[in-house]
Amino acid sequence: MDETARTVPKPKTPRTARGRKTQRALLDAAEAEFGEKGFHESSIVSITKRAGVALGSFYTYFDSKDALFRALVRDMSGRVKQAVAPAITDVAEPVAREGAALEAFLGFARDHKEIYRIIDEAEFVAPDTWREHYERTASRIFERLEAAEAEGKLAGPIDEVHAWAMMGMNVFLGLKYGVMDETRSVADVARIANSLIARGLSR
Amino acid sequence: MDETARTVPKPKTPRTARGRKTQRALLDAAEAEFGEKGFHESSIVSITKRAGVALGSFYTYFDSKDALFRALVRDMSGRVKQAVAPAITDVAEPVAREGAALEAFLGFARDHKEIYRIIDEAEFVAPDTWREHYERTASRIFERLEAAEAEGKLAGPIDEVHAWAMMGMNVFLGLKYGVMDETRSVADVARIANSLIARGLSR
Repeated sequence: MDETARTVPKPKTPRTARGRKTQRALLDAAEAEFGEKGFHESSIVSITKRAGVALGSFYTYFDSKDALFRALVRDMSGRVKQAVAPAITDVAEPVAREGAALEAFLGFARDHKEIYRIIDEAEFVAPDTWREHYERTASRIFERLEAAEAEGKLAGPIDEVHAWAMMGMNVFLGLKYGVMDETRSVADVARIANSLIARGLSR
Repeated sequence: MDETARTVPKPKTPRTARGRKTQRALLDAAEAEFGEKGFHESSIVSITKRAGVALGSFYTYFDSKDALFRALVRDMSGRVKQAVAPAITDVAEPVAREGAALEAFLGFARDHKEIYRIIDEAEFVAPDTWREHYERTASRIFERLEAAEAEGKLAGPIDEVHAWAMMGMNVFLGLKYGVMDETRSVADVARIANSLIARGLSR
């Protein structure tokens, strides 16, 4: 087995619709289990029980608890992207578009509070997938900003620093107003944060 | 023992200068050990060896590995504050002050890369100190912004959202340009990020 295959196991791809449904059930059960108990206290036995899947079938879908965890991080990373995409397609103005992305993300974080515990634990359990998640997220923001700058729609010059700054802002607003404190409306939080990156705080 | 004392153990306070020096040596050794190996793989035996302190003396200073870890999170949180404070005292303009704070933090993160692994692991090992660190950091930013707003020096209204947004920006810029990528100058990164919160990206 080469090093890459060993350190970044890919989830197996089921060939049937039923197989894909079972794999999805295992990922959803893993989200609940890892989110609640953390990686080390979670078990394949308990995850298959939650999913209503026979223990013996587990290895048809994932090689190990570690492989399932990595697949889950990638899955949640992809679901964040999917949750944000439809909210921004129709927003032409690039700063408002980032505000719409933040609002969609805050809603996703409220509905999937486990995402913080799971992605944060990936720093220790699966650091390659953890880093990949943030690098890809920052790249998406950077590409949107660069495209808008090329169209003359932003006060540039746009830098990778902007993308990491805005991602950090979004991550911590999701932690605070998605997970820790649900009293504020996500629209309100997104509007205030968006105004910060639209016009800034200088008088 | 009441619940509070059990879940939030306070470090013991040495009465002599020599005692304080030994406690400091243990905290510095803990920073290296926890930063390198993580909480679970770290041991009191190894930390006392690194510190050049007799194993038997450990319990004079800390009740347990857990108590040492919590004391270290508080210590690093305090050192971030101390690293930033002198950089901002002479900056009167409030947005530029936040830029100076970011630049000082980026320098601290480059010199203490372990801080990310330690504070991030606190989410799992000592969640109360983890949350306390971020709540206190956000409060400091919020108080600075509110004071500046009261003096009419910022385009308000200032909201707690601004503080969490700016903290998140700083945390992720420290991760990216302090820990992952040292090719950029911290002054340059801070200047670009500060311009984002000064005037924003809208044309």
